[in-house]
Formats: sequence, C-alpha cells, structure tokens
Amino acid sequence: MRLHLLVVLILSFATPLRAEDALSSWNEGQAKKAIVAFVSRVTQPGPDFVKPEDRIAVFDNDGTLWTEWPAYSQLLFALDRVKALAPQHPEWRGRQPFKAALAGDVKALAASGEKGAVEIVGATHAGNTPEAFQAIVSQWLASAEHPRFKARYDRLVYQPMLDLLAYLRANGFKTYIVSGGGAEFLRAFSERVYGVPPEQVVGSTIVTKYEVLDGAPVLMREAKIDFIDDKAGKPVAINKYIGKRPIAAFGNSDGDFQMLEWTTAGPGPRFGLIVHHDDEAREAAYDRKSSVGRLDRALDEAGKRGWTLVSMKNDWKRIFPAP
Amino acid sequence: MRLHLLVVLILSFATPLRAEDALSSWNEGQAKKAIVAFVSRVTQPGPDFVKPEDRIAVFDNDGTLWTEWPAYSQLLFALDRVKALAPQHPEWRGRQPFKAALAGDVKALAASGEKGAVEIVGATHAGNTPEAFQAIVSQWLASAEHPRFKARYDRLVYQPMLDLLAYLRANGFKTYIVSGGGAEFLRAFSERVYGVPPEQVVGSTIVTKYEVLDGAPVLMREAKIDFIDDKAGKPVAINKYIGKRPIAAFGNSDGDFQMLEWTTAGPGPRFGLIVHHDDEAREAAYDRKSSVGRLDRALDEAGKRGWTLVSMKNDWKRIFPAP
Repeated sequence: MRLHLLVVLILSFATPLRAEDALSSWNEGQAKKAIVAFVSRVTQPGPDFVKPEDRIAVFDNDGTLWTEWPAYSQLLFALDRVKALAPQHPEWRGRQPFKAALAGDVKALAASGEKGAVEIVGATHAGNTPEAFQAIVSQWLASAEHPRFKARYDRLVYQPMLDLLAYLRANGFKTYIVSGGGAEFLRAFSERVYGVPPEQVVGSTIVTKYEVLDGAPVLMREAKIDFIDDKAGKPVAINKYIGKRPIAAFGNSDGDFQMLEWTTAGPGPRFGLIVHHDDEAREAAYDRKSSVGRLDRALDEAGKRGWTLVSMKNDWKRIFPAP
Repeated sequence: MRLHLLVVLILSFATPLRAEDALSSWNEGQAKKAIVAFVSRVTQPGPDFVKPEDRIAVFDNDGTLWTEWPAYSQLLFALDRVKALAPQHPEWRGRQPFKAALAGDVKALAASGEKGAVEIVGATHAGNTPEAFQAIVSQWLASAEHPRFKARYDRLVYQPMLDLLAYLRANGFKTYIVSGGGAEFLRAFSERVYGVPPEQVVGSTIVTKYEVLDGAPVLMREAKIDFIDDKAGKPVAINKYIGKRPIAAFGNSDGDFQMLEWTTAGPGPRFGLIVHHDDEAREAAYDRKSSVGRLDRALDEAGKRGWTLVSMKNDWKRIFPAP
C-alpha cells in the first residue's frame, strides 16, 4: 500500500510526454492540433477528464498503421506462401485458384471469388497451430521484400502513427489494433513493431479446434472462416473482446466507418481520425475508386461527424521510419 | 524516461505481498504450499523466472470463484427475469418452457431441452444492448437473495479465491475469468467483485448485431448462441482473446478439464488447481454425480497430471467473506 501511494505521488509530479516531442513526425496543423487538444481534454482535471482505464483507443492496421498499397500485405504473404509450398503440390499447377496465384494473375485470382479465397487461406493459413503459423509469418517478414517500396514489410509502418501510439500510451491510453487482417498474422509482429501485445489485437479469425495428439494438446487452425472483423463487425468485435466503447478510433477506409461511428457517438469527449492517402510521391494516392482501402462514405461524412481528416501529404513530415 | 527508471528502481526495492498475509483465509497445508512455491518459482530470478507479461492466470467462475449450488446463478437470474417479465407476457402462462419456469418446475424445464433453453435465453438475455443488459443484471444482484444461503449472490464468492486473485496480481500476474457463463452477465460485476476488468472476461456469447436506430448506433443482443465457452471451447477462446497460453489455470469441474490440460502441458513451470466441493456443512458436497459442476475425470486425473486438489473443507479457513 505504501509503495502504491509512493508511485502514485511520483506519477502525479511527472509531466506527460510533451506533444511537440512525441509527435515530432507530424507537421504543425489542424490534425496535430486536434489530437493534442483531445488528449489534453481527457487527461487534465475538468469535466471531460476520463479515467485511465476508460482511455481505450482502437486502430485499424492496413492503410492506417502500415501500407496496404498496391495490395494488402497479408494477401502478398499468402501468394508468397503458395509459391513456397508449390513444389509439394504439383497438382496446383493445373488448378485454380492456385494456377492464378502462381502466375501472379490477379484477375483470374479475383475471378475465383470467395471460394477461391477460402482455398488460398486454407492452403496458406490453416493446418497448423497458432504458434507454428506465427513462426511462418515471422520468417516471411524477415526475408520478404515489398514489391514496390523494396523494404521489409514491417519497415513500411507509418512513423507518425508509431509516434501517435506512443503518445497515447504515455498519456495513459490502452492501444488496441482492430483489423480486418488475421489476428494470428498480426500477433506475429504487433508487439515488436507497434508495442501492442497479443491480448490487445482483435482481428479476423479462422475456426480453431482443440485436439489431443499423442497425449499433447494442440490448437489446430482449420480452413474455415470464423469471423470477419470488418465494417459492422468491428464494433461487434470491440464489444466482445474489450467490453467497453473506445473513446478514440483511427482508420483509413470505409471498412472503419462503423468503428468510428460507434466510438464517436458515445457520451463525453470522443475522437475519430481518418488517414487519407493523398501522397502519390511518398506512398500512394487513392480513395473513392480504389479496390484496396476504399474511402468514400467516410470521406464525405468526416466533416459533419467531426472526424479529423489527415492528409499524409500535408500533415506528415515523413511516412516511413528512417532506414 | 527518468520517471520510468525511478519507478522501476522503487519497484525493485519493494517486497511483494507476503504470502502468509495475502492468503490468510487458506489453512496451512499442501494446497497453500503449492501455490506459494509456484509463485515464488516464476517471480524469483532463476531458470523458471517468467516475465510479468507472460504471467497469465485463468479462472473459471461458477464453482471456482462463486457458488454454483444448488443451481448456476445465471440460471436463477433467468428464472427471476421470466417472473419479472411475466405480467407483460400473459401468453407465457400456457406455454413451455415459460410455464415450467414460472412454476419453478425444474424437471419440465429440463425436458424442454436446448430449444427451451434458447427460448429462455432469448426472453431474458436478448433484445437489448450490452449496457442495458448489464444494468438489468446489476439491479438483480442488488435485490435478489440466494435461495439457500440467504445472501446477495455477489456475496457468495469464495474469500480464499479473492485472496488468491489479489496475491497473484500483487506478484505481477494478469488474472482473467474464463467462464461458461455469459460474458456480459459477468462484466456486470467482475471488476467490482473480483477486480477483473471487462477486457479480462472471456465467456459465452450470444450473437450481437450492429444497428443504427434513428441515427444512433447500437449493439443489439439476439436470441442466438454465438459461442459456448466450456470444455474444449475454453482453450480455443483463451487463444482467441488472449493470444497466449496461460501459465496457471483454476477450475472446479470437468468443464475446466481442457483449460487445465492445455495450460499445464506448456513448457516451463505450470500450475493447475481444482476446487473440490467437499464441505457439506459450510457450502455443499458434490462431484461425480452432480448435474452442476460435475467433477469426475478431472478428479481421477488431477494426481497424475500434477494438479493441486483443494479441499474446501480442509484447505479453506472460511468460505464466504465476512458479512
């Protein structure tokens, strides 16, 4: 008890991380100003103060924390994995969707539809334990090179968002990832790259079965979709996993619309932010017409809903961390 | 950074809560000795040291943290709820399973099977938001009296387990509830009663849908089972929500068997504990033949698996907290 009191006393004397230091990769502007103003409102004594345990912030991953251009990294992982496994599957050479995956024929792959997607997921993501799958993802991250940016995938994270995660945590927030990507895929790197531990990763899941093999209990990942954590699924999953409505939500596409809508409709101070990919020179420019990270309705409604719209071009000093 | 260092320095000087103080409601004996020895092994420097972030402990609820005798409290809540709602549903008087529920006819209720159970759940647990449902549970807890022990349900928690939760947390453990009971039911009191916040409650769930009603986004609970967090479902849910294998698991019935099996089969130091209800005088005595909290296989195998078997009669100084 004495110890606890002492720590609290010391913490109360400490000055929180100064925003100008913490958010050094953000240009001075409306977006940075809005972030700092919100954090100040909920952490300083006053009517809008929020207890630390209720300072829940949720982040989309693809296009919000790391690049999703020109394709979702997890899809590129799956295609690399099909290639790596192909020698053990000579039958794939003549059969869709594998033939298309091996040829890099994105059109034919898309034409194989949901059935094709489930087959690819089954061949590349299932039939192993979560531990074994994460080891495969880690190996891939250590060796694969992004086709456009010629760097490791886990270097293609946004420095301003890393700064923001750290700034929020320094101000008592608990940061969660809430992604349409696979939970186990994300857990292979979320702690190392984002400082977000496995229990704060909410993602899409495939069915996992408990089995005892030769006396050893294991969890086996099956070729069957369990839950897609996208669109209206995001608030549902947040409630299921966290059991609280966040006070801040960060996204970049219409897949994040409901997460922001639900977060910012709660009582008291709320914060919603949309990253707009408008930086052709340093990353990519896309929104309404893109098949990845389509941003249309949320772009129209951000203003009237009071969501902060971030221009990567104007608001961010840099995109990726220094090599 | 300076602040962080200072806190770490102070923490390193602090003595952890002494076991003899922390576990004062436990009698001296093998069970208490085994708990203290395990905690000491994983927290002291040495080959078995476990980093705080991996000190995950999972607890069943019914029969492990609070009484489940003579019936699961959530079932008694549902029956009370049927009675409370009956005036608005005159049609229930002539229709099963409601007729049986209103008459307290447990046999007829059981005869209505899974279909009947889903109807009761639908009428008493669904058609509202998680917030509204939790408010109903809180109201019930504040007013209902347990039929046998003549006390509020949330007073019928086990003092030795409250002590154990606090002792583990004082030693850097993160404590989770992993229950066959409903997650939202548990979240109505888990933080207040057990010190376990909503995001550390894993339970059974019903389907929840995201809807926008008159411009206001809400989550609506539906009369449809989503996931039953029992038996082999427990390790599956732990992996899904926490993403780590716990190092300690606490249960009281065969419904906890797989959770203990999976937890204690991991590498390094592991701890499994089964609460045996053998105290007819102070609570209840039941195991192999009981329909609630049936303990058969886990009772047979606890010894060979190295799980600590707790005799409520001999290991616990008291059962419930002082009034």
